[in-house]
Amino acid sequence: MKAVILAGGSGTRLWPVSRYGLPKQFIKLNGGKSLLCQTVERLAAVVPLKDIFVITNEDYRFHVQEDLRSVSPAIADNVILEPVGRNTAPAIALVMKYCQEKLKCGKDEVIFICPSDHIIEPVEKFAAYAAQAEAAAKAGGIVTFGIKPSRPETGYGYIRKGSSQGGGVFKVARFAEKPDLKTAEGYLKAGDHYWNSGMFSFTIGTMLSEFKAYAPEISRRMSSSFTRMVSEFKTMPSISIDYAVMEKSKKSSVLPMSILWSDVGSWDSLHEVVKPNASGNVNIGDVLALDTQNTTVYGGKRLISAVGVKDLIIIDTEDALLVVKKGQAQRVKEVVDALKERKRKEVVEHTTTYRPWGSYTILEEGPRYKIKRIVVKPNQKLSHQLHYHRSEHWIIVKGAAKVTIGKKASMIHENESTYVPKSTSHRLENPGRVPLEMIEVQNGEYTGEDDIVRFGDIYGRGAKGKK
Amino acid sequence: MKAVILAGGSGTRLWPVSRYGLPKQFIKLNGGKSLLCQTVERLAAVVPLKDIFVITNEDYRFHVQEDLRSVSPAIADNVILEPVGRNTAPAIALVMKYCQEKLKCGKDEVIFICPSDHIIEPVEKFAAYAAQAEAAAKAGGIVTFGIKPSRPETGYGYIRKGSSQGGGVFKVARFAEKPDLKTAEGYLKAGDHYWNSGMFSFTIGTMLSEFKAYAPEISRRMSSSFTRMVSEFKTMPSISIDYAVMEKSKKSSVLPMSILWSDVGSWDSLHEVVKPNASGNVNIGDVLALDTQNTTVYGGKRLISAVGVKDLIIIDTEDALLVVKKGQAQRVKEVVDALKERKRKEVVEHTTTYRPWGSYTILEEGPRYKIKRIVVKPNQKLSHQLHYHRSEHWIIVKGAAKVTIGKKASMIHENESTYVPKSTSHRLENPGRVPLEMIEVQNGEYTGEDDIVRFGDIYGRGAKGKK
Repeated sequence: MKAVILAGGSGTRLWPVSRYGLPKQFIKLNGGKSLLCQTVERLAAVVPLKDIFVITNEDYRFHVQEDLRSVSPAIADNVILEPVGRNTAPAIALVMKYCQEKLKCGKDEVIFICPSDHIIEPVEKFAAYAAQAEAAAKAGGIVTFGIKPSRPETGYGYIRKGSSQGGGVFKVARFAEKPDLKTAEGYLKAGDHYWNSGMFSFTIGTMLSEFKAYAPEISRRMSSSFTRMVSEFKTMPSISIDYAVMEKSKKSSVLPMSILWSDVGSWDSLHEVVKPNASGNVNIGDVLALDTQNTTVYGGKRLISAVGVKDLIIIDTEDALLVVKKGQAQRVKEVVDALKERKRKEVVEHTTTYRPWGSYTILEEGPRYKIKRIVVKPNQKLSHQLHYHRSEHWIIVKGAAKVTIGKKASMIHENESTYVPKSTSHRLENPGRVPLEMIEVQNGEYTGEDDIVRFGDIYGRGAKGKK
Repeated sequence: MKAVILAGGSGTRLWPVSRYGLPKQFIKLNGGKSLLCQTVERLAAVVPLKDIFVITNEDYRFHVQEDLRSVSPAIADNVILEPVGRNTAPAIALVMKYCQEKLKCGKDEVIFICPSDHIIEPVEKFAAYAAQAEAAAKAGGIVTFGIKPSRPETGYGYIRKGSSQGGGVFKVARFAEKPDLKTAEGYLKAGDHYWNSGMFSFTIGTMLSEFKAYAPEISRRMSSSFTRMVSEFKTMPSISIDYAVMEKSKKSSVLPMSILWSDVGSWDSLHEVVKPNASGNVNIGDVLALDTQNTTVYGGKRLISAVGVKDLIIIDTEDALLVVKKGQAQRVKEVVDALKERKRKEVVEHTTTYRPWGSYTILEEGPRYKIKRIVVKPNQKLSHQLHYHRSEHWIIVKGAAKVTIGKKASMIHENESTYVPKSTSHRLENPGRVPLEMIEVQNGEYTGEDDIVRFGDIYGRGAKGKK
């Protein structure tokens, strides 16, 4: 069995923490690991690490590699790249082609598809369900995972179970859209409806035949090579696997699960996955709460004090704060839309931006200057580049840097500095064994990220664009 | 008439904006001017600028001078320095001695005492009342200013008026402590009680005789010179002018005023002085409020979004956030007390600290390094100093700096940098016509402000202590 994680989403429902530049799968909600890392580790209880793959797109490639590397360097390259997002049906088709061509999988190989940004506990129970689903997939089913509802949730799609097929698996009677409250209450009472968790298992052979029957246009594309599928991917129809195949297929089945599951679809659901204290508060960060009830605070470095409040959600980041009434967290969308309209950077990027070589944090920006803290990982190097409109002062605060300015290369160490004039080619690398931390002070009439000419890049990035 | 502003308070009732290092009189609440500046400008409608003085202590001397200078450079030195706080009675005694000795005032000179951190509008009306009080003071009274109450406020002291003395002034029937709600409602209904605004007028002769009668210990000290009074100031009894004199004196009178007045005693009162919008919201800063009512937001650079909330106060600063239920803002005290107990820096200083030569902002601190943005005002210079435990990199982003490192002096300009090794004497000055802005990156095993040895300082600061 191969496990494949879908990690191409760019959701902002957890804004201001999740942004286009750092969507939900990469953020750290409960504990120190990203939701993607947690997903990988959960799947490692089901299949060997080497059989876990992630499908994503170019924008998130380095994030995914970084997260995979943090679990095990051996799987850092287990990434399938979609050149462009075309919803889940073409993605599944690409995954299957990848498995057949690159991994030499046969038609009996089971593929387990899994979202990258959910929370499921405990892992042992999950592994047992996954094994049940694998058996049912081998028997020819497309096995969806249905979560036994604990409340009349209106934010999820539902699956109604039909007749038993044995092994804990049932035929799908029907897929139901997100219901209104009354309908959801009916589902809960009836007991035969389950939340659609977005996970499913199937053999390559089963899914190929169902694509052929219900999604012939996608099926036809699969006769070419993986490389060609990728190059023509943008002409794929954009359609979800649910609409394209599962809602039509007679092989769709559902495995009901009794397990703690959350798609963490809004800040309202944080208390489902992080246990509130005796006052009903979830406090993450540097929080001082006095006489405060049923309130979720999620912060970073700054001190957050709450006094005499209840039923609030307070989400604090370096450059943006959200205070929203509990129960209304889905309205973050309104904020995000308003900010998009105003072209505000706070929906796109954080003050810290991740790059394949490390990260940078904008400490301050002013007219004609910008100050960054830059972290370069061991053995990584930035592209060979120049800027027309700014010069750069570099001061090393930790580690050692190999710096090439013009034709001259030198090593600089902690508490040393150097200077890169305008229009001068330069390269920064960390040949050392510990992360390199440095401060960059940019001076110039324009300090935008797009003032860069790239001569060489070990990460295959183009001549223009981002540092 | 001389106007004297009391500006020695160190209140934190508007935390996290007001802190020990930047108390309320220096913060900018409504518009771009500090409450002290607004007080000076208001008094300028009553007396010539040159006759306005501020009494404060060493900690706030440079703040006061800076604020005075911003109104008019001619009055930057109109500062009376208390060596140590001993409440208002000794302060008034020192003010009178200063006026007699330094300003050659006679006993008929009227002194108008005024807090530094209140809001009073409109200024024309205030000036007319001040003139009335001056007349009554000349006639021998100690004239307090009573504000006609607009609500049963329990946070203020009250003055009950007695019989009319003509000229709009009444004898004081009694001073009343902060009442409970029922009592305050009674005061409001009776119509003869006024809020004690903390302002009062008197002639030097009148107050001297009342000190002699009711505060003989303080009175005795006034027979020595101003310099001696200052040097012995710490042995003064610590007592308020209200207790020491005004509640006992038969000369106390009250001038009832119908005017917009606020002591801005808590964040709850901000909407009294900044007009709320149609939704009842006061929005100061970069605020996006959706479906939000009766909420006060006060922020700085960061984006603050509020959704679906009401009756909240949200106060945001660089390093600390406060969210408090409206009507409970006086409970900020509980937060401040809790933070004091934890020795948190957020009650003492902001990330930006003001110094006589300008200011510095801590952009980031980490193990073995600290990054500051430093602004040096034109014609100002930092002390001649050295640090044992840190070296400093300086990068000029705006203006020009004269830098002396060891024995070598040089000029450095925008986009140039220099380096100060450990244990090396150095001096930074701005000989130019525009503010000097620079980035300092400190490296070393200890980066505390107290690692400084000072060889010379144009502001008379000692050999140890703060930059």
